[in-house]
Amino acid sequence: MKCKFCNKEAEVTIRYPRMHLCENHFKEYCENRVKNVIDKHRLIEKDEKLLVAVSGGKDSLVLAYILNKLGYEFEGLHIDLGIEDYSEMCKKSSKKIFSEIGLPLHIVKIKKLLGRGIGEVKTRRPVCSYCGLTKRYIMNKFAYDNGFTAVATGHNLDDESAFVFSNILHWNIDYLSKQGPLLEAEDKFVKKIKPLYELRDKEISLYASFAKIEHVTKKCKYARGATSIKYKKFLDILEKDNPGIKLNFIRGFLRNRKIFKKKDFELRECEICRMPSQGKRCAFCRFWRLKEPLMFQ
Amino acid sequence: MKCKFCNKEAEVTIRYPRMHLCENHFKEYCENRVKNVIDKHRLIEKDEKLLVAVSGGKDSLVLAYILNKLGYEFEGLHIDLGIEDYSEMCKKSSKKIFSEIGLPLHIVKIKKLLGRGIGEVKTRRPVCSYCGLTKRYIMNKFAYDNGFTAVATGHNLDDESAFVFSNILHWNIDYLSKQGPLLEAEDKFVKKIKPLYELRDKEISLYASFAKIEHVTKKCKYARGATSIKYKKFLDILEKDNPGIKLNFIRGFLRNRKIFKKKDFELRECEICRMPSQGKRCAFCRFWRLKEPLMFQ
Repeated sequence: MKCKFCNKEAEVTIRYPRMHLCENHFKEYCENRVKNVIDKHRLIEKDEKLLVAVSGGKDSLVLAYILNKLGYEFEGLHIDLGIEDYSEMCKKSSKKIFSEIGLPLHIVKIKKLLGRGIGEVKTRRPVCSYCGLTKRYIMNKFAYDNGFTAVATGHNLDDESAFVFSNILHWNIDYLSKQGPLLEAEDKFVKKIKPLYELRDKEISLYASFAKIEHVTKKCKYARGATSIKYKKFLDILEKDNPGIKLNFIRGFLRNRKIFKKKDFELRECEICRMPSQGKRCAFCRFWRLKEPLMFQ
Repeated sequence: MKCKFCNKEAEVTIRYPRMHLCENHFKEYCENRVKNVIDKHRLIEKDEKLLVAVSGGKDSLVLAYILNKLGYEFEGLHIDLGIEDYSEMCKKSSKKIFSEIGLPLHIVKIKKLLGRGIGEVKTRRPVCSYCGLTKRYIMNKFAYDNGFTAVATGHNLDDESAFVFSNILHWNIDYLSKQGPLLEAEDKFVKKIKPLYELRDKEISLYASFAKIEHVTKKCKYARGATSIKYKKFLDILEKDNPGIKLNFIRGFLRNRKIFKKKDFELRECEICRMPSQGKRCAFCRFWRLKEPLMFQ
């Protein structure tokens, strides 16, 4: 089978939109998808001061690689979660790609900053839940404190469609109106963008392999039972029968998400860190029992 | 394993809400579910003149059986679709149950009324699609012409959850605000009710078997490829992992369906039959190329 765009042998078959592609044209296809999402949703403005959050996994490293290839300027942020060897591997992969593309990478070490690593806190709260809280807070505060105007993350089509799907299935719809590839800045919340919004998990894996992007494939030991995996599997079954259903589902969601609109609640300032908060103290300062605001060296 | 409510051996295990039941208490459970839906959604008013539409399949026959057992007065309507032996079997089962419960059953023969049976019309439209149109129209017009104030159908939890699910998945959401166990009367549209809204397909089959309700189990030859079957299968996979997800999905939908509200469009009178119509002629009179309104003898 020949590539759709040249005479080379095709190495990849994409089921929706259906086409056979050689390695180079597959990579181009992925890069175009990212560019299209950025343009269509106006993710990156001129003079944007962009921070790209990288975990060490395929998604965020491919994101950094493609954004660099597309000519965007940015800096990286890696959060060292302090989960033994796993975090060491993640840090190593993140550093490698940033040294290859020649852009600065900031590293924030949770254990140094907060005294304990992820998984070392005694709490009834699931590890993935407070890990998410911690990463979101640090990404935003680091960006805000350092004058970045946008934070990009590696969320992909499978992540996003499973998220929306499971929230509709359980009618947890209060926050759906704000879900999407772009979350505008508000108060001290820096703009968040997801340029891989229309790329599938498998496409990103293949891209990483073709572009020889070393990344951590081992799953975090705490993530094993994550419920999101169940909905991803389920959507995979649907996708097998209906190629394109994930993409069309998420695009239909974006066209219709205004129906999920909920009144915004009042935000005030956390009395510890002065970041936006629903209560007197924000969830982050409460969880980590901070008495002083978190400061990055 | 003993029945939850008596000393008899349990014959059925319901996964959500989890319980083991003997034959009699299982039947009582089903009847209570129907009664609860009728009461909670006020499906049947005092002095309701109720028409129960029966196809000859398990759902509608169980519906007629349970409504009678619960003490409701009603008459039946069976539409003979004119699909050879299949329709003969359906008619026979419908007549049998009505003769057993001692209530009147009206039979409307499509072939006699419209010249051709379902499946005998030359059209590009799928058979299931114009069969649905025809049945809905006849149910409503028969009820309206004969002074019935409500039409009950045998739609069950699996039908309804698959319908809502597939419509959200494809974002065909314009008509979701009116979906539910109760569709109020409007203009010449008689009220429609679905008392089996919270009973599962399997529960109804088992009920029919315990209550010895003879019904047609053969599928209509035109229904084989119906896409709704696909979504039912998917929801079955989800339900297996999460007992109760269908019920909670559909209940969550009912709590939230106002978000799907769409402006009502103006209805006028069909110039042939004087029933409500979006265009000059209604879809039914157009499809069957009627020049006179359909009249029931």
